[in-house]
Amino acid sequence: MSLIKQNNKLTIHDQTVTFNNRILFQQTNESPILFLGHGEENIKMYRGNFDIHDHVEERIPLTMMDITEENEFLEINFGFQEQQYVTLKLQLDDVGRLRIQPTIDFGEWNRLWIRIKADENENVYGAGEQMSHFNLRGRHFPLWTSEPGIGRNKKNMTTFLADAKDHAGGDYYTTNYPETTFVSTNHYYCHTDSYYYADFDFSNNEYHELQYWGIPDEWIFETAETYVDLIGKLSNLLGRQFGLPDWTNDGINVGLQGGTERINTIIKTMKNRDVQIAGIWAQDWEGTQTTSFGKRNYWNWHYDDQLYPGLPSQIKTWHEQGMKFLGYINPYVVNGSPMFEDGRNGGYFAKNQDGRNYLVDFGEFECAVVDFTNPEAFIWFKTVIKVNLIDAGLDGWMADFGEYLPTDVVLHDHSDPMVMHNKWPVLWAKCNYEAVHEAGKQDDIVYFMRAGAAGSQTYNQLLWAGDQSVNWSLDDGLASTIPAALSAGMTGNTLTHSDIGGYTSMYGNVRDKELFMRWAEMAAFTPFMRSHEGNRPASNFQVYNDDGALDHLAKFTKIFQQLKPYRQTVIDEAVNQGLPAQRPLFMHYEDDVNAYDIQYEYLFGRDLLVAPVYEADQVSRHVYLPNDEWINLWSGEQLTGGDYDVEAQIGRIPVFYRRDSPLKPLFEKLKSS
Amino acid sequence: MSLIKQNNKLTIHDQTVTFNNRILFQQTNESPILFLGHGEENIKMYRGNFDIHDHVEERIPLTMMDITEENEFLEINFGFQEQQYVTLKLQLDDVGRLRIQPTIDFGEWNRLWIRIKADENENVYGAGEQMSHFNLRGRHFPLWTSEPGIGRNKKNMTTFLADAKDHAGGDYYTTNYPETTFVSTNHYYCHTDSYYYADFDFSNNEYHELQYWGIPDEWIFETAETYVDLIGKLSNLLGRQFGLPDWTNDGINVGLQGGTERINTIIKTMKNRDVQIAGIWAQDWEGTQTTSFGKRNYWNWHYDDQLYPGLPSQIKTWHEQGMKFLGYINPYVVNGSPMFEDGRNGGYFAKNQDGRNYLVDFGEFECAVVDFTNPEAFIWFKTVIKVNLIDAGLDGWMADFGEYLPTDVVLHDHSDPMVMHNKWPVLWAKCNYEAVHEAGKQDDIVYFMRAGAAGSQTYNQLLWAGDQSVNWSLDDGLASTIPAALSAGMTGNTLTHSDIGGYTSMYGNVRDKELFMRWAEMAAFTPFMRSHEGNRPASNFQVYNDDGALDHLAKFTKIFQQLKPYRQTVIDEAVNQGLPAQRPLFMHYEDDVNAYDIQYEYLFGRDLLVAPVYEADQVSRHVYLPNDEWINLWSGEQLTGGDYDVEAQIGRIPVFYRRDSPLKPLFEKLKSS
Repeated sequence: MSLIKQNNKLTIHDQTVTFNNRILFQQTNESPILFLGHGEENIKMYRGNFDIHDHVEERIPLTMMDITEENEFLEINFGFQEQQYVTLKLQLDDVGRLRIQPTIDFGEWNRLWIRIKADENENVYGAGEQMSHFNLRGRHFPLWTSEPGIGRNKKNMTTFLADAKDHAGGDYYTTNYPETTFVSTNHYYCHTDSYYYADFDFSNNEYHELQYWGIPDEWIFETAETYVDLIGKLSNLLGRQFGLPDWTNDGINVGLQGGTERINTIIKTMKNRDVQIAGIWAQDWEGTQTTSFGKRNYWNWHYDDQLYPGLPSQIKTWHEQGMKFLGYINPYVVNGSPMFEDGRNGGYFAKNQDGRNYLVDFGEFECAVVDFTNPEAFIWFKTVIKVNLIDAGLDGWMADFGEYLPTDVVLHDHSDPMVMHNKWPVLWAKCNYEAVHEAGKQDDIVYFMRAGAAGSQTYNQLLWAGDQSVNWSLDDGLASTIPAALSAGMTGNTLTHSDIGGYTSMYGNVRDKELFMRWAEMAAFTPFMRSHEGNRPASNFQVYNDDGALDHLAKFTKIFQQLKPYRQTVIDEAVNQGLPAQRPLFMHYEDDVNAYDIQYEYLFGRDLLVAPVYEADQVSRHVYLPNDEWINLWSGEQLTGGDYDVEAQIGRIPVFYRRDSPLKPLFEKLKSS
Repeated sequence: MSLIKQNNKLTIHDQTVTFNNRILFQQTNESPILFLGHGEENIKMYRGNFDIHDHVEERIPLTMMDITEENEFLEINFGFQEQQYVTLKLQLDDVGRLRIQPTIDFGEWNRLWIRIKADENENVYGAGEQMSHFNLRGRHFPLWTSEPGIGRNKKNMTTFLADAKDHAGGDYYTTNYPETTFVSTNHYYCHTDSYYYADFDFSNNEYHELQYWGIPDEWIFETAETYVDLIGKLSNLLGRQFGLPDWTNDGINVGLQGGTERINTIIKTMKNRDVQIAGIWAQDWEGTQTTSFGKRNYWNWHYDDQLYPGLPSQIKTWHEQGMKFLGYINPYVVNGSPMFEDGRNGGYFAKNQDGRNYLVDFGEFECAVVDFTNPEAFIWFKTVIKVNLIDAGLDGWMADFGEYLPTDVVLHDHSDPMVMHNKWPVLWAKCNYEAVHEAGKQDDIVYFMRAGAAGSQTYNQLLWAGDQSVNWSLDDGLASTIPAALSAGMTGNTLTHSDIGGYTSMYGNVRDKELFMRWAEMAAFTPFMRSHEGNRPASNFQVYNDDGALDHLAKFTKIFQQLKPYRQTVIDEAVNQGLPAQRPLFMHYEDDVNAYDIQYEYLFGRDLLVAPVYEADQVSRHVYLPNDEWINLWSGEQLTGGDYDVEAQIGRIPVFYRRDSPLKPLFEKLKSS
């Protein structure tokens, strides 16, 4: 049987579904396309870290396949032993995407597996923000938003200690931002419209097996001839980030805490060394409390008059001095605070099984969960952002968390917390998005989030890579932010950045000067510069205490400033075409087979290649250059494609620009910064 | 439908199978009795440690159930959606056991799950030798013979370091001796006639789910009114150990190495302090080589004339001095040795996929695998035992290993290595058994093994608990040998013992004097006393270097000697009734609900209760006594049932005898030893 529809775009022949000449599905008795089943999961949350076990009770291979052809669509019935179980309806939408909708015809199921045909040499990227592995092939990736973990590698000691103490070690796949979207080197993307727990297994040579703990609404495939086009098309589907305010080009946003007085003292020190400061980012603007993990903020979202007396007028003073002021917020409210009273009285919090306000343990303090499924609660919290943050004059904030929705919570709209858990980050992003847009401040304010889900592309203005350890580990240190940016970019998140210097200082990891400087020089070649004092500021290196590091930071904040015209083109491509600011080498060098497995170099826009030094004690690093004419930013040396050991002392992060770049004159000037 | 057969012993009613008034199976749509499926396993061996992953491709719930009644048996057909898949034939054998044989009616399957009805408060014991948990309820237990692991608890540092270095950390279930046999507190046993990889899951309140990676030959159930009867019946099925030579009552078998001269010097020291020595156990009788793990033996099974010049005549000298001599052997032959040449020329070794001799990595040296499925190889190796060990005058040996059969080996009889892996220990035991019995030496010789499988009950004369770490850890130290003995006993292994002082000194674990002394005083109340110098003798405490420890050992070897008349009754019960020498408290105190979860006390025979001190720095320990009249061995204090803190300095291991014991006069004398 052969069926050819719509100009040969979608064909079915010999139980093989081809879309734009790519074989997507192939049914055999040994390897059917679909399986349905039942599982009993066991999920335990420990402060945003999850132990998840599944007992698969049934898994039925749908070996029966029956095809119906209609004018506008195809239907494939799948069954087992003469019993029809599920129908897939395949149709092309008006822009040529393949949309596949499942309908369950028989039984009730909470597990579904679908197999997409794979080639042995195919690579796969995306799945949200993946910090250990950019190319996903050869591994499976559970997709469940959570803390990223401390260590993130079961073979290292940090992970072991974090697991032993708090179940907090994580693994290669744990991430704040998982997403059921991937891009294949067969030049297609696959997006699943579903927030169910999923596990995408790319370890088989013959197929990708995608598992869902529920029935997805839809699968969407689209193809393109180039990755640039493909990513652009994906961003048409998922949405695009709306850009950054112009002032973010002015320099670094310095993470500082401790109140107006301390901040002013430090800012003065930094300015004296010529550090270019765009903004002050004070995560403790709402006050603090101290726990054994370190200093934690007091989650009642109003400025603290002790630490920041008369903050609104102080912000005006900072503005006059040419600096913005950024704060912090998250969608939880600490028990016992004034806002907690408001939320309780309004009925704005998610409930537990007994109908009381669900309190989530955040580590020595407990918080209520703002129930975003309750329209009144959503408006209430949006209003908090508008009044307490925007009206107070804040120019931006970290919109933290979003991963902690417990799976036994009772929500206002009675939706399934097993679905809402993964969707929560986008509701939280949307709350920020609407607050800023309704206030008409989208060109003035910047907010940034670590948690994500499908939809974050639109609603999260700027991704931040979450909490790295203050060390050189591949899975959880400086290095991990590079595959994080690349995989987020392949999932349609164009603008990302990370904490300069990292965050988590635990189990003997302490930030040193070198790590801070390497991180800072990398950040100059990203869309946004922001530093963090970390969870234990006093015992970790701080740039403001060291003149040498301040000079280095001054140099790279100036480079960041000078790059503004180029960065603006990069951001324009992000906003208009959906192209990530940080791109894998293969995106512009498709023919270069060596470019596909490189995860510690990136293109910053079309014309800059950046190879950050991510190991300690280096004076050079290995760099692979795809075939082009490259000029070393520092030495001016011209290189063509190939492998090089490049000089890379601190302050000389390997960066190359294309000889043919229209902005060559700008790049030439940078070395004298 | 109701069916009552054979005097109401076996009934089926409402899809519920009852055997001697115990509900064994209950079919519902939500929880069928049987599932069939396919899995693709991925197994990697690292020196006897295994990484095992399974991808379950299909799992079909056999919700259709159809019963056929015949005169002599019942047949139950199971299927799914009108398709019949499997038939279980249930019949009672001539001693009243329920035997259930499966026949596959449709398809080919490599996974089978069967659910046995469970009660919430039911306990389960056995599954071979389990070192972390005696009561198996609440956990699942993969059943696959392997190294036991170093640390055996993913939360401790030793395990982490062993995993990181060698995949060698193990887990709570890793064991040299797994077995698909368990005993329920519903007074039945269940034995599966199968050596396939299995995983017995006792974590569900409603059922026990037993998983097999193949179709078992048979399930066998039997019931009894008491545990004593039940264990006796189980031993009728599985076989019984044949007993120990009389000379083993004479004292300790001292683990020593380094050759005749060194041994004689040490023995003299020990005898001078009055240590009672039954035998010298020299694991290096065949010579040594050194690796980074420590001193390892040279696996060419003939005495080493350098270390032990003229060993046969030296053995005669030791015999004249009242001491036996024991050696060591395992079923591997080191590459490059004379025996390797013999085996290669004879074609006695297992092959790899290329048809060459399979070489197994044992840690810096490689060995061939004697292929016991080749009758000629079996006879060859049996002859090696007869000639090189028995004829040379050896009085016993450690028959080590048996767990390392690779799953990609090619065997002479073309049997499936996935089955033979778990069966290998019993083939190795049988080789020893036949050698000893054919030589007529079964009353003179003692051999002991750590690896086991169904059949070891007959063929392994004496179980040994394998390689503990030289520390106090519950999962891998002294303590672990107690649940090991109890669970092995519930699986029909009546005679067991352990290395006095432990074996594995790695990752900072070093044996100290206290540990040795606590282990020695416990061993006096087991069937057999044997010490080990450990894998790194020089850096660990050795009893012969310490007069205080020698005096302590002298005392407990004398107690062991004096206990001979009592121990003989214990061993007689083992040999004749299948009762384990070391018994859980509930075996004789069934009505005592507190007795069922105690895993660090045991009854040694009917009349002694032993509560070893398994923690450092103790001067007392908590002891639970079941309801009886107990007399403290040391103080003579009389106690009835209940909880006590008992004085327990070194040398005063808490031991109690029953006031009504016929051997009370013997016990009374022990305190003055």
